[in-house]
Amino acid sequence: MAEEKKGADRFGTVALSEDGRSLVIIDQTLLPGEMKYIALSDQRDIREAIYRLKVRGAPAIGVAAAIALYLAALEISESAPQADEDEFFRRLEAAKIYLQESRPTAVNLKWALDRMYRHALSLKGAGAARIAASMRLEAEKIRSEDVDVCRRIGENGLTLLKKGQGILTHCNAGRLACVRYGTATAPIYLGHERGYDFRVFADETRPLLQGARLTSYELSEAGIDVTLICDNMASSVMQKGWIDAVITGCDRVAANGDTANKIGTSGVAILARHYEIPFYIAAPSSTIDFETETGAGIVIEERSGDEIRKMWYREPMAPETVRTYNPAFDVTDASLISGIITEYGVLRAPYDVSLKELRDKIEAEKRKEGDL
Amino acid sequence: MAEEKKGADRFGTVALSEDGRSLVIIDQTLLPGEMKYIALSDQRDIREAIYRLKVRGAPAIGVAAAIALYLAALEISESAPQADEDEFFRRLEAAKIYLQESRPTAVNLKWALDRMYRHALSLKGAGAARIAASMRLEAEKIRSEDVDVCRRIGENGLTLLKKGQGILTHCNAGRLACVRYGTATAPIYLGHERGYDFRVFADETRPLLQGARLTSYELSEAGIDVTLICDNMASSVMQKGWIDAVITGCDRVAANGDTANKIGTSGVAILARHYEIPFYIAAPSSTIDFETETGAGIVIEERSGDEIRKMWYREPMAPETVRTYNPAFDVTDASLISGIITEYGVLRAPYDVSLKELRDKIEAEKRKEGDL
Repeated sequence: MAEEKKGADRFGTVALSEDGRSLVIIDQTLLPGEMKYIALSDQRDIREAIYRLKVRGAPAIGVAAAIALYLAALEISESAPQADEDEFFRRLEAAKIYLQESRPTAVNLKWALDRMYRHALSLKGAGAARIAASMRLEAEKIRSEDVDVCRRIGENGLTLLKKGQGILTHCNAGRLACVRYGTATAPIYLGHERGYDFRVFADETRPLLQGARLTSYELSEAGIDVTLICDNMASSVMQKGWIDAVITGCDRVAANGDTANKIGTSGVAILARHYEIPFYIAAPSSTIDFETETGAGIVIEERSGDEIRKMWYREPMAPETVRTYNPAFDVTDASLISGIITEYGVLRAPYDVSLKELRDKIEAEKRKEGDL
Repeated sequence: MAEEKKGADRFGTVALSEDGRSLVIIDQTLLPGEMKYIALSDQRDIREAIYRLKVRGAPAIGVAAAIALYLAALEISESAPQADEDEFFRRLEAAKIYLQESRPTAVNLKWALDRMYRHALSLKGAGAARIAASMRLEAEKIRSEDVDVCRRIGENGLTLLKKGQGILTHCNAGRLACVRYGTATAPIYLGHERGYDFRVFADETRPLLQGARLTSYELSEAGIDVTLICDNMASSVMQKGWIDAVITGCDRVAANGDTANKIGTSGVAILARHYEIPFYIAAPSSTIDFETETGAGIVIEERSGDEIRKMWYREPMAPETVRTYNPAFDVTDASLISGIITEYGVLRAPYDVSLKELRDKIEAEKRKEGDL
């Protein structure tokens, strides 16, 4: 992999270790204080890393899950080499469900696990060891596809932007959410290489502060002009005329264009509409869930109130007994979205139509490649 | 004062000490961990307490400033009892300007200082000691008027609400922002006494977390049903249909109804409009600035980026070098405000007209009382 040349950047955000026996990730809960890679081989550790957001961002979670399911297959095939294939598939399916339950909202998690499992099923009869070996290649393929998809999202997104524009983003759909480039940040990185001189505003994104810890970190490391604001300052910077476009990532797009993304995204979209600023979603086609008709069908993960009351702080910032409501995501109504930037191009409303056309196109491509 | 019976509650949020020689406030930067009264007599300490938000909230700042200017008058009159009155007024005016510069946006600060200074001027010729003694009574009057004003705002606000409703508030315009009752919370406290069973949602209000530290604290202490959320979750709770009304306080209302309040308020107002939820401002008439025509004329205080990058946290949550933008307030356009709740009643749009009527009414009252 020629692109993995730099020391610290050798692994990107998520990768399989060189010996093929562990998942290597940046522990993002330590950022921006410490940039540390950790290697995980135990399924419980991997599941915990996904739940605790050591690895996060829909595309990165998908790649991590793919590698994790390969590692599960490897372990099963090695621990009982004489067991029959039915037993192998029973245990592989259990591993798949175990991983899938770590975060219910991100569709890439399920997408990557389903793809890996389908790949395994297609090799039925080849024997557990061979199936596991082939799953390794499939996981590596998912990973390199992510790099390619992000690059194409960057190119497509850049067609919507002009030099010197102000761009607001929410949460982290950056390099750290993917293998590299990011989704929402891909047009920003590409534009930076080409002298677009964007001025980026990053919402800090409470409660877990991905915008402060990750987005402002990775953009400033790359030399991009970035200003960190609290979530509740988005209206102010829009009112001042500093924002020409909003771009966020997404965790799941329903068949009608309703989009689940990090909590607060729907509010940013409503503000953008009020101030007549275009609001774009950067969405790899793997985040589109054609099985879910509208946003109402998307399960929203609720997390512990301690993330609001005391996580990150020196002492509890609210009485321990105070009730909280802590949804990790919200759903932005399709009507508020100016465009969905995919690796295939920018989709426009009506999204039920444009998304269906995209699905047909993807299926036709796959048929041509003999994948379906 | 019959209402000051309970030990811890003896002083309310801000008061003159019994010996009349210091300002007694709750140090709100220690809440909710510690409930501690501090007594300040030095002008530098008082100014620092206002700047550091140990005392905060427009009405409480006004009362604190009135007491502070009396203390300044006392000190001047005692330190140079033989000095002429011109010297007394020169030094008193310098003290007034020194206090006024601590926070530029809150109009109550200027309002209370101007009123105290005008009161002193009206006694010219009586001698410094007598002027100072009379200023003490004027400061006490400003304080007791605040209690009365908040109670009347509560009564007027309650006419807009129904039993069992969900109410969202932002920042802290509660008891802790006033002497007692609060402004935005006054209808909530009165409704609670009368069995209205409101469900209150409190925005945590970054960066200084007044909603978490103060509003969720004081409401839960009072036995009111309160749920703490991050600022970026307001859209979600509105989308779920949990909010029937939004009530916030304000720091300054311009003559056309544009309103400056804690950063994030304008965003909440835009969300409320989107979800067709009424958005009310609770505004003692002392926060109305008839000299400022529109919100464009209101100076917005910008504070240190360290409040975003590292205050409250165990370690910096963003690289120290990342640029920030940290406005303490924003301006909500009058067109987004469903009603302005004052001690005289609920004002409706067009606010340039209803605010002018209110001013005429207040001036007529004052003329009747011989104040003008």
